[in-house]
Amino acid sequence: MAEFSIDRFVDRYAGRTAGMSASEVRALFAVASRPDVVSLAGGMPYVEALPGRALLDVAAQVMRDDRTTALQYGGGQGHLALRERLVMLMAEEGVTADPDDVVVTTGAQQALDLLGKIFIDPGDTVAVEAPSYVGALSAFAAYEPRFLTLETDDDGMIVEQLEYAIVRGERPTFVYTVPNFGNPAGVTMSRDRREHLVALCREAGIPIVEDNPYGLLRFDGDPLPALRSLDPQNVIYLGTVSKTFSPGVRVGWVLADPSVVQRIVLAKEAADLCGSNLTMLITERWFSDDERWRGTLAQLVTTYRARRDAMLSAIEEQFPATATWTRPRGGFYVWVSLPDGFDTTAMLAAAVERRVAYVPGTAFYPDGRGRERMRLAFCYPTEDRIVEGIGRLGALLHDEEQLYRSLGGA
Amino acid sequence: MAEFSIDRFVDRYAGRTAGMSASEVRALFAVASRPDVVSLAGGMPYVEALPGRALLDVAAQVMRDDRTTALQYGGGQGHLALRERLVMLMAEEGVTADPDDVVVTTGAQQALDLLGKIFIDPGDTVAVEAPSYVGALSAFAAYEPRFLTLETDDDGMIVEQLEYAIVRGERPTFVYTVPNFGNPAGVTMSRDRREHLVALCREAGIPIVEDNPYGLLRFDGDPLPALRSLDPQNVIYLGTVSKTFSPGVRVGWVLADPSVVQRIVLAKEAADLCGSNLTMLITERWFSDDERWRGTLAQLVTTYRARRDAMLSAIEEQFPATATWTRPRGGFYVWVSLPDGFDTTAMLAAAVERRVAYVPGTAFYPDGRGRERMRLAFCYPTEDRIVEGIGRLGALLHDEEQLYRSLGGA
Repeated sequence: MAEFSIDRFVDRYAGRTAGMSASEVRALFAVASRPDVVSLAGGMPYVEALPGRALLDVAAQVMRDDRTTALQYGGGQGHLALRERLVMLMAEEGVTADPDDVVVTTGAQQALDLLGKIFIDPGDTVAVEAPSYVGALSAFAAYEPRFLTLETDDDGMIVEQLEYAIVRGERPTFVYTVPNFGNPAGVTMSRDRREHLVALCREAGIPIVEDNPYGLLRFDGDPLPALRSLDPQNVIYLGTVSKTFSPGVRVGWVLADPSVVQRIVLAKEAADLCGSNLTMLITERWFSDDERWRGTLAQLVTTYRARRDAMLSAIEEQFPATATWTRPRGGFYVWVSLPDGFDTTAMLAAAVERRVAYVPGTAFYPDGRGRERMRLAFCYPTEDRIVEGIGRLGALLHDEEQLYRSLGGA
Repeated sequence: MAEFSIDRFVDRYAGRTAGMSASEVRALFAVASRPDVVSLAGGMPYVEALPGRALLDVAAQVMRDDRTTALQYGGGQGHLALRERLVMLMAEEGVTADPDDVVVTTGAQQALDLLGKIFIDPGDTVAVEAPSYVGALSAFAAYEPRFLTLETDDDGMIVEQLEYAIVRGERPTFVYTVPNFGNPAGVTMSRDRREHLVALCREAGIPIVEDNPYGLLRFDGDPLPALRSLDPQNVIYLGTVSKTFSPGVRVGWVLADPSVVQRIVLAKEAADLCGSNLTMLITERWFSDDERWRGTLAQLVTTYRARRDAMLSAIEEQFPATATWTRPRGGFYVWVSLPDGFDTTAMLAAAVERRVAYVPGTAFYPDGRGRERMRLAFCYPTEDRIVEGIGRLGALLHDEEQLYRSLGGA
């Protein structure tokens, strides 16, 4: 944090802050929010699709009917009526749950932080996919674990790698995975691997943390069973309404055994006392109208599918032949791999100069890898903008490749 | 946590969870929420005083005018327009601030957690008042500090104790204080002590964390200068709208130097990505109408003053002569001290049996003290209920005293 040379507290901070740094990438993103830049960087849902009239009604109903509850402190576990709705939402994905086993959190992100807090001692091993959700890596990193990275391919986590690690004597505190349309890779864990992972972890006594923000955003193909449905005892399950409804209400949740739930509630109370009853009641009300929430979700899926299609065909057309990329069947992201020699972090400034932004691959690895990779989000920009942005990015990649060749690269 | 004998993850939890326990007191509070029990326990603001029509308007305006912002992710630092309003609120208490130096948090509680996260290494010393806000103790405890306790009297923290500790070689990571109408003691730090504390800490290079949830709820007497106004460089200042508006919006904040702000924002993003734009915009809108928020605040102050008066005269009338108590000039709480031999934790079950509840004193000390003390909240029950509750509690105290005497106590 060299940018603040005069920091009177410099010798006061905790050791864990050493891992918290504001990168140059962050500074570039500030530039990338200019309207002329096509941002393929942020994972912002397309909330413009939410019906204004219905939302006005929902907010008005809550303020009229439940005002004093909405405006008061609530319990650390979250409003019961909402937990009942979340149980219903989980049932959509084949997960059976009791509202007593659910804790409402500030987005699923807070569930990651609280799980880190109750499970990770400094030096403990946490097993994560490579690449993995950057927010999970930061949440866990605050508790100073060692990361064991498990490679992924088009079928998600390569579970054999965990098996070998266990044989080698590793016993991670937990395994973290986003099995459906993962962030950033956009890949989905196959059924065989799900069954293998669940059996392996049950046998080894290693809890699984299953993070499922995108499960209901499937564009094609059949749903695969949630890990939690395969082993309710050993899997801690995280969900969120950020992608099916709105991230602005900050409603996520964790489903776990009573002993874990009790610790999560205590950790949550120490972290922020309780969530917002107001946004919990608005969320509960939103999902109380079956036609409304299903209609909105169907519209979102249609929108995102069209955007994915636009992105994939533009990439096919515009990117150099040496690039490879994933073909997600849902979610928000395409993951692009470039030949050795590319450095997507170094290239970002040039991309922003050409009015397109992405997230460099290194963000998604705890070990500095990913320089030749990038995450492209298709969730927010319109199809036209996506095609425009991919065009700009493709041109840059061709130029970079040519430059690299002219310098004598492979 | 003996109540869960079968916990498959029992050997997996982090060391810090050893300090997180669900006490029997918690179980009793569940019983105490029955409507026939007068609860003098909880610090719930009287949100019933908030005008329904105005709140409906505010929510409707946000959903109409700023819907897509309200429903989208926001930045980790919090919505700028709200930060500008909070700067205005701080000016009410003589604190000058720049919106860039403010981070919006999930209530001030989250600010406590994030400060713990960025400042406390295991074994570090944190100086706190005795008694101290229980939520601060739990937030900090998660980062495993050693607590240095500083006694209080009717003029707040006895600053000389900190001075002696520094002479002895102590150098706390920070000093935490609630200088105005503190929770639980209800006492206010005198002007002399404020000046002494600020000079002492500046000299010793020890940051002060000033937590000021109740400052605007003054019933009588003149305001005293905020510590932050006495030393803007060395004081980290926390505020909240939970007491002047609503805890349901979960809006608190921290004001600090840019280097601390940067670390808080990174820690906040790792903890929950961002706060709720929806509740931030509602809060901003609420405080945009000067007449509205000042009118509501004035009404709250009038209500709480009358309730304090009712509680103090009922205590005077009903409690045994051996009891002493504080006389708060604002805030929510009266702090009662009973003779040695009383055990307010043990007595709580009998109190709930007699349909009155309080918070036992031990909750407010990190070192097991406070058995003969209790916190009584006058913020939520009506005057009649307060008188009723204090009557029941007084009768119990007389009975306990008699029993104690008959058993040969002092």
